[in-house]
Amino acid sequence: MKETEIVLKKEVSLKSPILIEGLPGIGLVGKLAAEHLIKELKAEKFADLYSPDFPPQVVIEEDSTVRLLRGEFYYWKAETKDQSDLIFFVGDNQGLTYASQYNISGAALDFAENYKTKMIITLGGLAIGKMSKTPKVYGAVTHKQIVREFKKHGVSFERKAGQGIFGAAGLLLGLGQLRNMRGICLMGETQGNYVDPKAAKSVLEVLRQYLKLKVKLDDLDKKAVEIEEMISRFEQIQKSQQQPPVPQMPKDESSTYIR
Amino acid sequence: MKETEIVLKKEVSLKSPILIEGLPGIGLVGKLAAEHLIKELKAEKFADLYSPDFPPQVVIEEDSTVRLLRGEFYYWKAETKDQSDLIFFVGDNQGLTYASQYNISGAALDFAENYKTKMIITLGGLAIGKMSKTPKVYGAVTHKQIVREFKKHGVSFERKAGQGIFGAAGLLLGLGQLRNMRGICLMGETQGNYVDPKAAKSVLEVLRQYLKLKVKLDDLDKKAVEIEEMISRFEQIQKSQQQPPVPQMPKDESSTYIR
Amino acid sequence: MKETEIVLKKEVSLKSPILIEGLPGIGLVGKLAAEHLIKELKAEKFADLYSPDFPPQVVIEEDSTVRLLRGEFYYWKAETKDQSDLIFFVGDNQGLTYASQYNISGAALDFAENYKTKMIITLGGLAIGKMSKTPKVYGAVTHKQIVREFKKHGVSFERKAGQGIFGAAGLLLGLGQLRNMRGICLMGETQGNYVDPKAAKSVLEVLRQYLKLKVKLDDLDKKAVEIEEMISRFEQIQKSQQQPPVPQMPKDESSTYIR
Amino acid sequence: MKETEIVLKKEVSLKSPILIEGLPGIGLVGKLAAEHLIKELKAEKFADLYSPDFPPQVVIEEDSTVRLLRGEFYYWKAETKDQSDLIFFVGDNQGLTYASQYNISGAALDFAENYKTKMIITLGGLAIGKMSKTPKVYGAVTHKQIVREFKKHGVSFERKAGQGIFGAAGLLLGLGQLRNMRGICLMGETQGNYVDPKAAKSVLEVLRQYLKLKVKLDDLDKKAVEIEEMISRFEQIQKSQQQPPVPQMPKDESSTYIR
Repeated sequence: MKETEIVLKKEVSLKSPILIEGLPGIGLVGKLAAEHLIKELKAEKFADLYSPDFPPQVVIEEDSTVRLLRGEFYYWKAETKDQSDLIFFVGDNQGLTYASQYNISGAALDFAENYKTKMIITLGGLAIGKMSKTPKVYGAVTHKQIVREFKKHGVSFERKAGQGIFGAAGLLLGLGQLRNMRGICLMGETQGNYVDPKAAKSVLEVLRQYLKLKVKLDDLDKKAVEIEEMISRFEQIQKSQQQPPVPQMPKDESSTYIR
Repeated sequence: MKETEIVLKKEVSLKSPILIEGLPGIGLVGKLAAEHLIKELKAEKFADLYSPDFPPQVVIEEDSTVRLLRGEFYYWKAETKDQSDLIFFVGDNQGLTYASQYNISGAALDFAENYKTKMIITLGGLAIGKMSKTPKVYGAVTHKQIVREFKKHGVSFERKAGQGIFGAAGLLLGLGQLRNMRGICLMGETQGNYVDPKAAKSVLEVLRQYLKLKVKLDDLDKKAVEIEEMISRFEQIQKSQQQPPVPQMPKDESSTYIR
Repeated sequence: MKETEIVLKKEVSLKSPILIEGLPGIGLVGKLAAEHLIKELKAEKFADLYSPDFPPQVVIEEDSTVRLLRGEFYYWKAETKDQSDLIFFVGDNQGLTYASQYNISGAALDFAENYKTKMIITLGGLAIGKMSKTPKVYGAVTHKQIVREFKKHGVSFERKAGQGIFGAAGLLLGLGQLRNMRGICLMGETQGNYVDPKAAKSVLEVLRQYLKLKVKLDDLDKKAVEIEEMISRFEQIQKSQQQPPVPQMPKDESSTYIR
Repeated sequence: MKETEIVLKKEVSLKSPILIEGLPGIGLVGKLAAEHLIKELKAEKFADLYSPDFPPQVVIEEDSTVRLLRGEFYYWKAETKDQSDLIFFVGDNQGLTYASQYNISGAALDFAENYKTKMIITLGGLAIGKMSKTPKVYGAVTHKQIVREFKKHGVSFERKAGQGIFGAAGLLLGLGQLRNMRGICLMGETQGNYVDPKAAKSVLEVLRQYLKLKVKLDDLDKKAVEIEEMISRFEQIQKSQQQPPVPQMPKDESSTYIR
């Protein structure tokens, strides 16, 4: 395998679907949000993306079968007239090399263009160094006109200019612009070192409103409580030991080294 | 040389041979096992694999001739009706870059497909951090149905999900799946820091049974005794010196730096 | 996106324009100089250069829109008979990998050749480890005959041989030579750790004379005063704290690595 | 520039020339030896090799002109019947990436094959950690039969197997083998940390005899004396200061960082 490859698993017909990206990133905010939507909407997988720039390994599944690391595309068809068809782009990780991140985002856009995608929504976290009770959602867009549309749904655009959005959440928009695609990156405020279901929920509250979806977000509340309890336990242990904080981003699950 | 190249040295006709991989990895378990089989079966070399992603050097042989680093393919023809033809894929090392590991495994599968290979068995070690008297053999498969087949031969499938198999031992299976090939990775328990002929023997006991081969494994016992003596000598020296342990993985033989 | 791409934004007709390069480098001398000229001449952008070897991110602009990192081409048409048409090549950064710097410089030359460019002027800083009141401008050329031409405008060619010019400032000349293009690199003496508008001004004084341009350089004086005040403030703080000096090269706005 | 490129500067007709390689390596032994021969034989340059995997810079020459880093090919025509035509492959450096070393050696072999080269002699140093008064010359060959030929000229083949030859000195032979080219690597014993004209002389004594060349080696003696004086001066300084030894490999001449 020399190039990024997308393997179609099911032929589907979609009507200018909106592409929603949620690959792993800060606080896993985008990944949690996209995967929650996929689950709640019962979106169906229709393609896998493989790349020689993913880590060179397979993951062992529950049933002892292995699989390559991959990106995944799910689709969902609008159920009412005011909704849009959706394609979700999620996966195990981003490309290992810088150049491969451009390649992989380009391949995902090629794929979405087959279905006449004209709008991209990327989901991510914005590290602010502290926990917030009700995380704000910040936006950055491909075209000025989109700002107003999302301000209505409570998205803030006050971040100062000059900042960057790294990885697929940024590149899908930047590369999409060159193809005349419109898009927005929705970033939920998050501490930065912890998985953050609360920030994912904030992002989904915006998205649910904008996409006119009827999905519950309760599961994310439960996850948030669990994470918070875990964090506070760690902090107590740290205080009692006066040691440097334990890093809490979950380790790659596939960390045992076999070859 | 810009791409991985396979140079055929002999035309052979094989009947859907099983591909058996044993490149260097943890404890050199896979390498020891595959090379032992090649020697005992008197398998014959029929192709070499070269890659610009192997270290940029040649190795000096006993007779003062040099050769590039390489992968090697050996074949063996079934002698009885219940055996299968075999292709062995062994070599000096894995690709130096992550992407090249995908490329090299892909090239090896291309090669095996020429002979209508439908089954792949990769051999490796599973580091458990301690020596075990009778190393267990763990399995991970491309298709659920294969589990039962190998449980009969004593392979354990109890490892918890989410772990990874790195390098060719994993990628041959993962990339093979995309080509509708079936396969299993057999991993012998091993301490992790030492060359481990005993773990290689455990793996071969399974393989010998499954492939219905009549091969002796005594040589591996002898090697195991030698390694164990060496380790216990090192440990005594360490204790007497109270110094950090000497790393014991054998150094690349070609470590003198000439150019 | 797999390759460096140049996206033309406007068709223009130019008469053997001189290519002037000012990508980020030591003291940002070349960048400051080229961007000052673009502003003063009201040169117009007519193309963007994108590359998978730029950092994998987008930058957020003032109006909340995002854009990929990029190189930019501006053009300016001669207003009098003794002037030349100009193409400016500026941008956010140089390529992240060594090989990509060759590729990007090659792509820029391909682009300039479309307009029959025969002369290249690259702008940069020469780190000398100390501030100088009136920075000298050193030159290095593609063809011996060019030396005399620029000595008239005060350029020094006394640097001893064997030194190197890194990045686009060097490669555009070296690769240009292979295409029979002529060129010079103008290097303003600079301390090396600070942004240096004064060195940019020295370079522009040469360039203004050579190109017979009527542009003011006062803005660079103002910037120089600001930077000097900032430096002296930092130095006072350092002395009072007896701590190691604060690194003063301004960070890339998009927090990436500038070179 | 995306690929290694060879630019022919002069059409020449050669009769199965022997390719002699002397790129920078341990003790600069190969480079000193090849460049000495080029000078003494008045060999003429007929091609340059450029690569995006050389450092991204130009070097400033004595006359203030710049040039890309490069490999160089020189040719020399036999003057008597018992001599052979020669092609020399020398240059500024080896490829920066491992893969590029394969690519560059492959490109050099492609070039030599145009002239029907059937024999390759690569020159290098063998680091032994100490100075020797009369450095031995070791050999490693592509074909067993070549051993005898060179033993006659005093080359030793006693080095133990398993060692490696890195870079072009090894790869030209290894890749040449795949093209049915014959070859030898001649390695002069050297301390390893110093430029070593004496080792270069030992290598040339073998080569001069084998190639039946009438060249003087006195210049190398002079250089050796200079280096030795320099070393002994450094050692005295070190002793008096009781500090760690100063590294003495000459720095890349183009070490000033300009761009």
